[in-house]
Amino acid sequence: MRPNARAINQPRTINITRHYTKHAEGSVLVEFGDTKVICTASIEESVPRFLKGQGKGWVTAEYGMLPRSTHSRMQRESAKGKQSGRTMEIQRLIARSLRAMIDLEKLGENTITLDCDVIQADGGTRTASITGACVALIDAINVLLEKGTLKTNPIKGLVAAISVGIVEGEAICDLEYVEDSIAETDMNVVMMEDGRMIEVQGTAEGEPFSHQELLTLLELAKQGCEQIFVAQREALKSEK
Amino acid sequence: MRPNARAINQPRTINITRHYTKHAEGSVLVEFGDTKVICTASIEESVPRFLKGQGKGWVTAEYGMLPRSTHSRMQRESAKGKQSGRTMEIQRLIARSLRAMIDLEKLGENTITLDCDVIQADGGTRTASITGACVALIDAINVLLEKGTLKTNPIKGLVAAISVGIVEGEAICDLEYVEDSIAETDMNVVMMEDGRMIEVQGTAEGEPFSHQELLTLLELAKQGCEQIFVAQREALKSEK
Amino acid sequence: MRPNARAINQPRTINITRHYTKHAEGSVLVEFGDTKVICTASIEESVPRFLKGQGKGWVTAEYGMLPRSTHSRMQRESAKGKQSGRTMEIQRLIARSLRAMIDLEKLGENTITLDCDVIQADGGTRTASITGACVALIDAINVLLEKGTLKTNPIKGLVAAISVGIVEGEAICDLEYVEDSIAETDMNVVMMEDGRMIEVQGTAEGEPFSHQELLTLLELAKQGCEQIFVAQREALKSEK
Amino acid sequence: MRPNARAINQPRTINITRHYTKHAEGSVLVEFGDTKVICTASIEESVPRFLKGQGKGWVTAEYGMLPRSTHSRMQRESAKGKQSGRTMEIQRLIARSLRAMIDLEKLGENTITLDCDVIQADGGTRTASITGACVALIDAINVLLEKGTLKTNPIKGLVAAISVGIVEGEAICDLEYVEDSIAETDMNVVMMEDGRMIEVQGTAEGEPFSHQELLTLLELAKQGCEQIFVAQREALKSEK
Amino acid sequence: MRPNARAINQPRTINITRHYTKHAEGSVLVEFGDTKVICTASIEESVPRFLKGQGKGWVTAEYGMLPRSTHSRMQRESAKGKQSGRTMEIQRLIARSLRAMIDLEKLGENTITLDCDVIQADGGTRTASITGACVALIDAINVLLEKGTLKTNPIKGLVAAISVGIVEGEAICDLEYVEDSIAETDMNVVMMEDGRMIEVQGTAEGEPFSHQELLTLLELAKQGCEQIFVAQREALKSEK
Amino acid sequence: MRPNARAINQPRTINITRHYTKHAEGSVLVEFGDTKVICTASIEESVPRFLKGQGKGWVTAEYGMLPRSTHSRMQRESAKGKQSGRTMEIQRLIARSLRAMIDLEKLGENTITLDCDVIQADGGTRTASITGACVALIDAINVLLEKGTLKTNPIKGLVAAISVGIVEGEAICDLEYVEDSIAETDMNVVMMEDGRMIEVQGTAEGEPFSHQELLTLLELAKQGCEQIFVAQREALKSEK
Repeated sequence: MRPNARAINQPRTINITRHYTKHAEGSVLVEFGDTKVICTASIEESVPRFLKGQGKGWVTAEYGMLPRSTHSRMQRESAKGKQSGRTMEIQRLIARSLRAMIDLEKLGENTITLDCDVIQADGGTRTASITGACVALIDAINVLLEKGTLKTNPIKGLVAAISVGIVEGEAICDLEYVEDSIAETDMNVVMMEDGRMIEVQGTAEGEPFSHQELLTLLELAKQGCEQIFVAQREALKSEK
Repeated sequence: MRPNARAINQPRTINITRHYTKHAEGSVLVEFGDTKVICTASIEESVPRFLKGQGKGWVTAEYGMLPRSTHSRMQRESAKGKQSGRTMEIQRLIARSLRAMIDLEKLGENTITLDCDVIQADGGTRTASITGACVALIDAINVLLEKGTLKTNPIKGLVAAISVGIVEGEAICDLEYVEDSIAETDMNVVMMEDGRMIEVQGTAEGEPFSHQELLTLLELAKQGCEQIFVAQREALKSEK
Repeated sequence: MRPNARAINQPRTINITRHYTKHAEGSVLVEFGDTKVICTASIEESVPRFLKGQGKGWVTAEYGMLPRSTHSRMQRESAKGKQSGRTMEIQRLIARSLRAMIDLEKLGENTITLDCDVIQADGGTRTASITGACVALIDAINVLLEKGTLKTNPIKGLVAAISVGIVEGEAICDLEYVEDSIAETDMNVVMMEDGRMIEVQGTAEGEPFSHQELLTLLELAKQGCEQIFVAQREALKSEK
Repeated sequence: MRPNARAINQPRTINITRHYTKHAEGSVLVEFGDTKVICTASIEESVPRFLKGQGKGWVTAEYGMLPRSTHSRMQRESAKGKQSGRTMEIQRLIARSLRAMIDLEKLGENTITLDCDVIQADGGTRTASITGACVALIDAINVLLEKGTLKTNPIKGLVAAISVGIVEGEAICDLEYVEDSIAETDMNVVMMEDGRMIEVQGTAEGEPFSHQELLTLLELAKQGCEQIFVAQREALKSEK
Repeated sequence: MRPNARAINQPRTINITRHYTKHAEGSVLVEFGDTKVICTASIEESVPRFLKGQGKGWVTAEYGMLPRSTHSRMQRESAKGKQSGRTMEIQRLIARSLRAMIDLEKLGENTITLDCDVIQADGGTRTASITGACVALIDAINVLLEKGTLKTNPIKGLVAAISVGIVEGEAICDLEYVEDSIAETDMNVVMMEDGRMIEVQGTAEGEPFSHQELLTLLELAKQGCEQIFVAQREALKSEK
Repeated sequence: MRPNARAINQPRTINITRHYTKHAEGSVLVEFGDTKVICTASIEESVPRFLKGQGKGWVTAEYGMLPRSTHSRMQRESAKGKQSGRTMEIQRLIARSLRAMIDLEKLGENTITLDCDVIQADGGTRTASITGACVALIDAINVLLEKGTLKTNPIKGLVAAISVGIVEGEAICDLEYVEDSIAETDMNVVMMEDGRMIEVQGTAEGEPFSHQELLTLLELAKQGCEQIFVAQREALKSEK
């Protein structure tokens, strides 16, 4: 039995609060159950040096956790003087995922930076981050469209992400911390609205996983993402 | 005329939300108008090396700002690989202020770390941090008392902090960003409930300030802190 | 047509040279075509702090590239003062993959560090690293068995890794640099000898990939790994 | 009784030696009793990026202590790889204080950097630094005036700094180390010649301080600064 | 008796393999017995800022050791976040030595970076590095001549380096690790083909050395370098 | 003609002031003409980890320059976050040189750290540092002897250092900055009182140097060191 009697294919309650803070062009509080992440999108009207003069834009991301977002306090990365390998891995994943939903040519020479800061962690912080950053990114693009900076909409579609895994031999969707910490296999899937995939990252923490298990996990991920797309569309429906 | 027609001796609306996140022993969202800071208090049952074996405890603090808590995005300190001088100065101030309200002998060999993370900045982030951290610290101490780790209460009283300053020749209380950015003199005062002071930091940004101006600012700070103590007591009244 | 007229399911020529350098307990030069990596396994008779006293061992990995292993010279990471996100991501992948082939209980309180240093890069450096590190790790384990430090063999089986991807609409196996740099989808698969998977990391660099494409890539990866296992077994056949 | 039978309102003997080293445009050895600091002022005919093109100058400061300027040897900050929070706090204070005595418009697009390096510490190193840097800054400005780089003198007046504090219940002026280390309250005051203040930083190390105590400390600081201004004027009287 | 019955004035077998890796303009594997170093020369068609606009070129060097090139594993410098003093000292020596063989005016505004990476260490890694880097540098210069980037050859002659030392009272040439680790005096000599010297660095590890001992060591170094020049000329004889 | 009409074999005026600062066990201001270095010796009654339990002591050194000790201001190394290669090279040289004058067995498990901080630079800072540190080290050893921490004197003799070089074709002794900056060859020699050498570091900055030139430089260094030993003995003659 899962915590809160969740079905194996049932994601946690997903809340997406837009305009959560006031300065950023896009600002979203995303909640996957007790996992809470502030996702902001910041526009800069220039591009990194390697893109200068090509007429293309850029989307990048940074990720952080408040020191006490977790069960026991983690050392603050700015005090340690460097970001952990895990942090770097996650922010690279977020950036790649969000770039996939944008036509960088249509973005022009603008950069959008997505900051995903976890204020409370309970498993699935990277998938919540991608899900929330998608909405913040759309809000920021709309600012550029309204200002007339952009003439055509560079958005290709929504992006959602979910974790799936095998826990005590059973494949389940959207692992929370107590499940994640004992999972034999952990997989994160990032998906476009049409069901095609941007990222699949499966890791055997314990036993290796079989081809059949992989297929089951992919099916669960598809079902989970569909529910996330519903939540994203709902959040975006309200007027600005 | 001040923004929102505030009187010169009137602080912004102060909200203190306890139990804001679930893992920390003390967790507070403090709001001074549009300035919003998450303050958590984390207990560690040991002390730093320089205190080992003395039977005394320690209270320390760290401070950070989310990259887009500000008008334009700031570089993330963990990505830069170091904390700025401003960050270090503020977290040292917070730590000294909060230590003043604790009898470290009675705390025993325990350390409490206060993390103050600004999610939205509109002036006065350090004074909001001290004010919120005071409440988080009390909640954490109560955890230690309830668990029986502490036998006697080490809390000496509440601590509040407020900024005052001279803007366009006029002394005002609790500066918000549009005021702070043009202030001639900026002063932060940290006070105990009995009106005695823990810290006074006055800085002439433009013209030097006279003895008389200093006295006026101190009087404003006293009035402001009294209102903060009311808000803190109100927040602490509710049951755990 | 692929370079050197390779078939779409054909890995490059794989050479594994054991005892490549003289100090390390395991030392392998692995070549996937023009990609050349020195993989060493170093034994330390202790474990990291988080494992102390549990009777279990640890396997970890570090990865680096010589500055001119690539087409244009990269800055030396030790001179920059930090490892890139890509480096960290790869060394975490190598470590997880190799840990999967070892029963850490049987390893006792010993640590084996796998250093994978790329001396010439032509695509697939992380999969070559895992493949070579597997052989170096076995040589190091055999040292521990011969010395009598270990009583029972902790090795569960061989581990191999291969990259597969979609290039100009076609799924191919073991991408070299000219292919990798234009791939629409890039996927790395780490496999045990029984065909079960340890890691699957698929990334859409251009267009998202469909479920059917994912299945095709997995099949190619399986065929590729089978050929790598042959090369590993061949290399291990020769006496020490 | 204070060390050397000093009166409570009596600063230590203050010596200011100009032209102490030969390369800097301003170079001063300042001594407050046994506290000795080398203060140099270095001119650069440009400004930091954030001021470019505004026709204004800049004054900045750095602070350091020789490792064995203190009772027991401190670790060298360059070897540790970073400056402590205390160092950053002090150099920010020095810079703000010295900027207050300069009309930055009249300085034109020039930067003056004040380096304050403590060669022997016995309390009050930051106030000695400000006092000495004031004289070094004037010498550097005179170089610019003599060279004709500046047409009008940007100096508004002298700046002096003193520490005051409460030790064993008594308010005293210019604390030396044995006093500073047991002070209940420690306050640094930076003053212009007309008695107006640039900085007031009061900290309760033990008991909070009352409004009346604050007033007493401010009066002591005023008397102390008056004696420092005499010493500065005396030092500046001699020909270049 | 020396290991392998070497005569006191006999260097180890020296092998120089050109075109060892494929991307670099010059790429050499140099072996002094069991010491093996990969030396690459990389061309950049620009110069560091301090040389811009002077029509002169630059030659620089970096040095590293694979973590398990040594008897026991060393910590990776990129993971530590800084290069050791020894590493910096050696790479500065290599750079100075190689610059001595180039007419920087004739090199034009080009920079050549020599990367010397030790894959197996058995004493004398810095002298092997200089010896190998000399050949790699010549290959890179030839690329510039063939491309027509350079009109005249900037090479002044070959550079070779050898270590000499006093071990158990006896002066010997080209110390290997077991000798180096017990040497009383250790000296590195870098020489031009005409016998003139570029660097002499002698260090008494145990007893100081006398003037007469210094002369004996210099004579041994001269004989050793002559043999190295033979090996270098031999390696360079083969067509590209 | 040399500056100040110095003879080619004549060092600058050497002043050695003991007890220059009050906290360190040994504290010396050494002046070689306009080059001025504060050398302190600090005792710690323990040894670094690699020496623990061997009954032997350690002597180490650190070197720094005040930012404006030089003609134009250098960036502060603590602000840059790392020591330069030149700094590391020099402090390693100082440490090796001073260790040569101490019997580490007789020192017992004590560490002496020599801090050499240049307050004014005019060439020869490393040789002045070694010369001054020798005297500071003797003072510190005498503290240990007087306290009874040491029973037997571990000092083997004095150590002196001088720079020699070839300038405009002429070999000269103790180069000052205007000479050093145009020297064709620069050589630093560290010598024991009996004329035997601890370090010889000769570098051709322009043309390589011949065997004969090396001999001439060594002879000049010997004469220079003899004069330094006189100055050291004179300084040590005065009572403590």
